[in-house]
Amino acid sequence: MNSNKAAPVASEENFLYLTKAGIDTHQEPVLFMRRDCHVCRSEGFNAQGRVRVCVDGRSIIATLYIVTGDLLSHQKAGLSDSAWKLLKAKEGDKATFKHALPVESMSFVRGKLYGKVLGDEAAKAIIGDISEARYSDIQLAAYVTACAGNNLNLDETIAITKAMVECGEQFHWGEGVQVLDKHCVGGLPGNRTTPIVVAIVAANGLMMPKTSSRAITSPAGTADTMETLTSVTLSFEKMRRVVQEQGACLAWGGSVSLSPTDDIIIRVERALDLDSEGQLVASVISKKVAAGSTHVLIDIPVGPTAKVRSIELAQMLGRLLIETGAALGMKVETVISDGSQPVGYGVGPALEARDVLAVLQCTKSAPDDLRQRALSLAATLLEMGNACPSGQGLALATQTLDGGAAWKKFVAICEAQGGLKTPPVAPFQHPITAHKAGIVALFNNRVISRLASLAGAPNAVTAGIDLHVRLGDRVEKGQVLMTLHAEARGEMEYALDFYRAHLDVLHIEEEVV
Amino acid sequence: MNSNKAAPVASEENFLYLTKAGIDTHQEPVLFMRRDCHVCRSEGFNAQGRVRVCVDGRSIIATLYIVTGDLLSHQKAGLSDSAWKLLKAKEGDKATFKHALPVESMSFVRGKLYGKVLGDEAAKAIIGDISEARYSDIQLAAYVTACAGNNLNLDETIAITKAMVECGEQFHWGEGVQVLDKHCVGGLPGNRTTPIVVAIVAANGLMMPKTSSRAITSPAGTADTMETLTSVTLSFEKMRRVVQEQGACLAWGGSVSLSPTDDIIIRVERALDLDSEGQLVASVISKKVAAGSTHVLIDIPVGPTAKVRSIELAQMLGRLLIETGAALGMKVETVISDGSQPVGYGVGPALEARDVLAVLQCTKSAPDDLRQRALSLAATLLEMGNACPSGQGLALATQTLDGGAAWKKFVAICEAQGGLKTPPVAPFQHPITAHKAGIVALFNNRVISRLASLAGAPNAVTAGIDLHVRLGDRVEKGQVLMTLHAEARGEMEYALDFYRAHLDVLHIEEEVV
Repeated sequence: MNSNKAAPVASEENFLYLTKAGIDTHQEPVLFMRRDCHVCRSEGFNAQGRVRVCVDGRSIIATLYIVTGDLLSHQKAGLSDSAWKLLKAKEGDKATFKHALPVESMSFVRGKLYGKVLGDEAAKAIIGDISEARYSDIQLAAYVTACAGNNLNLDETIAITKAMVECGEQFHWGEGVQVLDKHCVGGLPGNRTTPIVVAIVAANGLMMPKTSSRAITSPAGTADTMETLTSVTLSFEKMRRVVQEQGACLAWGGSVSLSPTDDIIIRVERALDLDSEGQLVASVISKKVAAGSTHVLIDIPVGPTAKVRSIELAQMLGRLLIETGAALGMKVETVISDGSQPVGYGVGPALEARDVLAVLQCTKSAPDDLRQRALSLAATLLEMGNACPSGQGLALATQTLDGGAAWKKFVAICEAQGGLKTPPVAPFQHPITAHKAGIVALFNNRVISRLASLAGAPNAVTAGIDLHVRLGDRVEKGQVLMTLHAEARGEMEYALDFYRAHLDVLHIEEEVV
Repeated sequence: MNSNKAAPVASEENFLYLTKAGIDTHQEPVLFMRRDCHVCRSEGFNAQGRVRVCVDGRSIIATLYIVTGDLLSHQKAGLSDSAWKLLKAKEGDKATFKHALPVESMSFVRGKLYGKVLGDEAAKAIIGDISEARYSDIQLAAYVTACAGNNLNLDETIAITKAMVECGEQFHWGEGVQVLDKHCVGGLPGNRTTPIVVAIVAANGLMMPKTSSRAITSPAGTADTMETLTSVTLSFEKMRRVVQEQGACLAWGGSVSLSPTDDIIIRVERALDLDSEGQLVASVISKKVAAGSTHVLIDIPVGPTAKVRSIELAQMLGRLLIETGAALGMKVETVISDGSQPVGYGVGPALEARDVLAVLQCTKSAPDDLRQRALSLAATLLEMGNACPSGQGLALATQTLDGGAAWKKFVAICEAQGGLKTPPVAPFQHPITAHKAGIVALFNNRVISRLASLAGAPNAVTAGIDLHVRLGDRVEKGQVLMTLHAEARGEMEYALDFYRAHLDVLHIEEEVV
């Protein structure tokens, strides 16, 4: 070279033919290239480097893994399933490759770690890059970690919420239309009130286009549970039609691209078993705003082993939710509920769906705590939506449920979404018995969630725990306390190993005679 | 199942034959398995899940990538190069697979994010797990991020330092033996004083078994530079022999397993372009303690674009280094130096090696700033080591360098390590010229480092920048300010693209007439 002219454009000659590697690397786009191919050598690529792959004006950033054996020919580069999809590649596409420029928005993440506030510009840049799949998994981990705990203040939370809304689709239900919504901050296994509440509220003519997320660190989210009952992966247009027809839906938020970065962030939070209060608020409020909600009720269960452990924390979180909602033009109310033990009997997508059906069908075996919680939330929403005078919500909700109108509405919603299904049952079940007699004195919600997760929930939809006792129950030695459900022998074994090391999943106190 | 007996041990039947996948995933151990093979199905494995791979009583944790095509047969599982090495696998080994239990020490990382202090137990657990390769890349990213900025206090830093020392090998040079060492916290391109200082100090009969790290976010570390001159990958025993013979060595710290977690952590810090003060102190002090050093001098360059930007920060860092050293029984002194511009002419491993040789050989072209800095540091070390009375260190150091004793000692050390080599020269060179006339008023060290990194340094050893001007120099329009060096055309192109977007690499002020 040794000249003052610009170097020739490498991309003109440095091409390889793309092939589908046939490797599922989950979300992270991965590129496979031979160490001794001409592109790798001339560009000076290294393992785990970030490479821009270009085809016909389209391009993605992928993480490079170097092929040291004979998996690929010298003329080919492989793409992981996620990279293949993201680039919309076809077999034999001629692609060029260059070093990806550093993702500039990472400087805001670094700034945050040194105490700088994440402003609107920073939030927009970070969330924009995440939504365009420009962050590698370790960069996502750094962002999630930087926001973890209480590290985001109100302004930062609002900035991230706005950015998350902006990079996805948004529903507009019309000027002045009142759109109801509810949410539970989670942490309480089995607290699956949403399908019941939506059915009661919609049966009373109010609009409730519900989108739910999948589980973060819990064994089931409402979307996971509803997926065992009907289709929840609705297109933007399909969701709109269901709501126009039924006044409500029970869809997965990720499938309609409302706040699409949420699911990317959630995957990493789940892998790290890490939550962030600000990110949680941004996640909740951005989904609600994108869904076009105007009035939102948020359930915050409090208990020693729930996600929120004290009334003070719940109040703090409640304020953050209310104020972030207000900043985005949405009325938010919060209710603090008892989070001392799991709700209903089932923990895990299909088992919780079974409980939901029992309450909606008013069967004798229906768990009363799930019923009461759903009625109370529906009551507040009916009053917020002016379906009845203040103070008469509970009576109206009860009448809607017991009279069968809620069940009828639920069936209609499921039919509109693609048909009502019967939740499947796990092939492997294993009883867990009391090691002594006494009174059930304490449930450890976190250990219960972990146990259900290790059994395979939510990915294995029938996996989880079926609880047979409640706080205060008297049990005999050898009595079955719960039944573990799993879809694979390995997962059952894994859950049992964990149970043997964590017998404190529920505490039995000996009775004082 | 449906019985109260424990599930059968899955591992007895669920085996696959191992094969080397021939894929370099850098450090993270990766497992490749068909989605439809019996193990994947029965264990319920998912993409990116963490799986324990067991062979003959040995086992590793690997990240699972699912093979969706025909890369592997149903009876085989592939391992990445790093996993293959870590497990010491052989082609055809019969391996069993199970879900890896969650890494318990991650709970300490989570606790840290919620404001808990990292105590001795936590540090030991985290560093132990990292050294045993039990952390995935995203878990490493979370740990590095949790410690980033000023997030570690003195006690936490001491705890991590102790843990890092304990999980590696340690040199003991004998009771009461005085062992000298030096270190620069970095951030100043070209500040390659170490080889010169070691030669001067050792030529005066003091013991200086120097181990250096590779670059973190900079274009060269001392180990990278020394590797262009001699072999730095010495075994524990080889390093001991070199020091016994020559009183000194210039080795790569990672190769002798002194504080081995350091290099694992550094790789992720580099990918995230993230430093942590506490982790930096732990990294420095743990290496020195493991190397058996008793007296350490630490150079802290300060400048607006150096790693440390203010005297206050330098003093704070200095205190942290001195106190952490003291807690581990080591005497640390610090010196704050000028960090306003790069040192010497070359930036990048081979270019810096060229400058080091020029100073040691006292050639006319030797950069005087590098010479003066090395003399000053050597002077302090000679006094710390009682090789001369206080106040006479500089005279002794100068005499040792100018009299040729330092060069003779440097050659002897290199010969003992495997022979002195001539640093190679880059095949691609490209001059960068002044766009106007004036006075060189400012160097941006960070942009210079970035530019040299993009040109390929330190992985491409001849890559980097050769500077032809200094602060205060008068330049004409069109005068060559620096020459870019690269080993690959793509990297040169990449660096030039970056330069065109960052002309502020050095600022030329017009002269007021």
